[in-house]
Amino acid sequence: MKIVILNSGSSSIKYQLIEMPAQTVVCSGMIDRIGLENSNFSYTTENNKIEEIVAIPNHTIGLEKIADLLLDEKVGVIKSTSEIQAVGHRVVHGGSDFSDTVVITAAVKDKIKQLFDLAPLHNPANLEGITVAETIFSEAQQVAVFDTAFHQTIPVVAHKYAIPNALLTENKIRVYGFHGTSHKYVSEKAIAYLQENNCAASKIITIHLGNGCSMTAVKDGKSIDHTLGFGPMNGLIMGTRSGDIDQSVIFYLVNTLGFSLDKVNTLLQKESGMLGLTGYSDLRDIEAQAEKGDENCRLALAMNAYRIKKYIGSYTAVLNGLDAIVFTAGIGENSSLIRQLVCTDMDYFGLALDTEKNEIRSKQLREINLVNAKTKILVIPTNEELEIANQVYDSLN
Amino acid sequence: MKIVILNSGSSSIKYQLIEMPAQTVVCSGMIDRIGLENSNFSYTTENNKIEEIVAIPNHTIGLEKIADLLLDEKVGVIKSTSEIQAVGHRVVHGGSDFSDTVVITAAVKDKIKQLFDLAPLHNPANLEGITVAETIFSEAQQVAVFDTAFHQTIPVVAHKYAIPNALLTENKIRVYGFHGTSHKYVSEKAIAYLQENNCAASKIITIHLGNGCSMTAVKDGKSIDHTLGFGPMNGLIMGTRSGDIDQSVIFYLVNTLGFSLDKVNTLLQKESGMLGLTGYSDLRDIEAQAEKGDENCRLALAMNAYRIKKYIGSYTAVLNGLDAIVFTAGIGENSSLIRQLVCTDMDYFGLALDTEKNEIRSKQLREINLVNAKTKILVIPTNEELEIANQVYDSLN
Repeated sequence: MKIVILNSGSSSIKYQLIEMPAQTVVCSGMIDRIGLENSNFSYTTENNKIEEIVAIPNHTIGLEKIADLLLDEKVGVIKSTSEIQAVGHRVVHGGSDFSDTVVITAAVKDKIKQLFDLAPLHNPANLEGITVAETIFSEAQQVAVFDTAFHQTIPVVAHKYAIPNALLTENKIRVYGFHGTSHKYVSEKAIAYLQENNCAASKIITIHLGNGCSMTAVKDGKSIDHTLGFGPMNGLIMGTRSGDIDQSVIFYLVNTLGFSLDKVNTLLQKESGMLGLTGYSDLRDIEAQAEKGDENCRLALAMNAYRIKKYIGSYTAVLNGLDAIVFTAGIGENSSLIRQLVCTDMDYFGLALDTEKNEIRSKQLREINLVNAKTKILVIPTNEELEIANQVYDSLN
Repeated sequence: MKIVILNSGSSSIKYQLIEMPAQTVVCSGMIDRIGLENSNFSYTTENNKIEEIVAIPNHTIGLEKIADLLLDEKVGVIKSTSEIQAVGHRVVHGGSDFSDTVVITAAVKDKIKQLFDLAPLHNPANLEGITVAETIFSEAQQVAVFDTAFHQTIPVVAHKYAIPNALLTENKIRVYGFHGTSHKYVSEKAIAYLQENNCAASKIITIHLGNGCSMTAVKDGKSIDHTLGFGPMNGLIMGTRSGDIDQSVIFYLVNTLGFSLDKVNTLLQKESGMLGLTGYSDLRDIEAQAEKGDENCRLALAMNAYRIKKYIGSYTAVLNGLDAIVFTAGIGENSSLIRQLVCTDMDYFGLALDTEKNEIRSKQLREINLVNAKTKILVIPTNEELEIANQVYDSLN
């Protein structure tokens, strides 16, 4: 079965064509800066790689261009769009309505639209991707995989805020959680690995550190608590997002310092986090500057790790135990420094890093704790596209 | 040495006259609803108790009335105001300027005034109390004891927010922490008790559950992290305050649901917390309703305890260990149910509650863990007035 995976952003499309159940990536690529004169376009197969700067005015034209190449005599990989049996769409917000992957119907599209308010940057783009794909791959099943779905198992004691009840019952204000596809993928990999090695696997904390950052407490394979909440701002320190902050600060910025609320929103989403602390948002730059003695960079790295440690403690309490922690996504997979800072002075939690294994760079699952450590420390490369393909395949078979 | 302790609120004064170093409370009382026709006034000595409803238009008249009774021929306890050698003032916000108790000078009063923006409800009332006391007890030393002082040892990694640096360096936006007098008092009592019993005492978590609620990680007697931050809204679920909440909720309430920012502030400070979840703000009512089967009350109690458990985990990570937890203040000292909910399923942290000892009501320090438990669970009545008296006495001798 050939499945196209689409991740449509407001001005971007990431795509893969995956052959299932073999899990072979036949083709992959992306378009960004849709709407500008100089969109970046890429298309990669086993034998061909195309990279262009070209004007792509909208998502329809972008997806048509992808389809044209898929069908192209020289570089194409299919003969007809009818070979595509399913299109799997990443949809960021599924609200409380979707706890699982669903085949897209008119009713599903209506629900995704009703959730625009909860994910104003993402859901409209996701829906546009669906609409365009329905035209181009008209014979394929369209399937939605929600970033929030994995977290629908978070119990009410953890997903409810301590605000008047009507704001939950009527206005649906609660913890939704994000990066669910990634947390699900790596927690399943971790559980399989631990079970193969006859280790306990019921109490796991997954730590997704990428552009966005989040952690999940996973009990018996299910998400039971998570650092991102109603929106994608809370919890860990991110590239440009503050993570946890006392809400008093917002009132002070507006009422005393005279900021507009929009300015505060921009500040907390785009000018805070590692960027606000250091002037850099890319962790590699920050690590390099810290190495050279930049005190702001050193402190920002320490703060970043401190916040992660606090949530490891928090989720160990929620789980009443800890079998393994899992690092994943760009920073989690590649920054040995962040992993080392997080695992230092955490022996109460059974964390004992093997500093040599921590330095190994690899695209494989790896265990980086000392041999007899009480708690496993795993690095597991995430693969959200493959997880979406798996879920689409499972839901159709 | 006779010391008057004053805790001046916006419409209230709580006071004690304490003989030091004997720590004898000679007289105590309070006034609330200052400015209304029906202010409550109380005055209690060993032999007399006066309770009145009377019009007290302002703090000056209130404090004059207290002084009159202290000097009264029948019910008084002093012959002249000159017997009062010091007045100890509780001041809520000392900013970054005060890490210790100080004798009040014109410069100190200026600093307290400069901090009005950071504690708009409290510091102006505290300063008014100081000004009035300077007139009435003109021969006494006026001393300020700050609620924030104990937390000035919180290191930058924990007191800085992940927002642009200038907001800390120029605008002083950081974690200050509150209830410091209480956390200091009970942590010192706990350390003394543990040391007397040859137990480790370097890693302690103090849990202050009263009208306001907060927790402190105390390492070697010093505060190193705390749940309240820049203002008194964050962290644990309180009577009417939400505690931790995703800041996205604020933007959604304003931008999507059309709330004014002032309305959101009122909502999070006065209509949330246990009140928002149950309709009741007094924990005794909530426990009674939960007992009768009210599901909202049961859930609110579970959420309250869940939040505390998460911070126990968090601070155990920060401390990399845990010697004792300490419950204090109205709810912490009296609600065996909250203590039981917090200590359930926390054996990873060495918490094992002796359910019989947990039910004992007492005004004394008590240990309520099972005899061989790894971590001590203590209940220690707080006494902020006595702590202020101790600090005033120490600072003048």
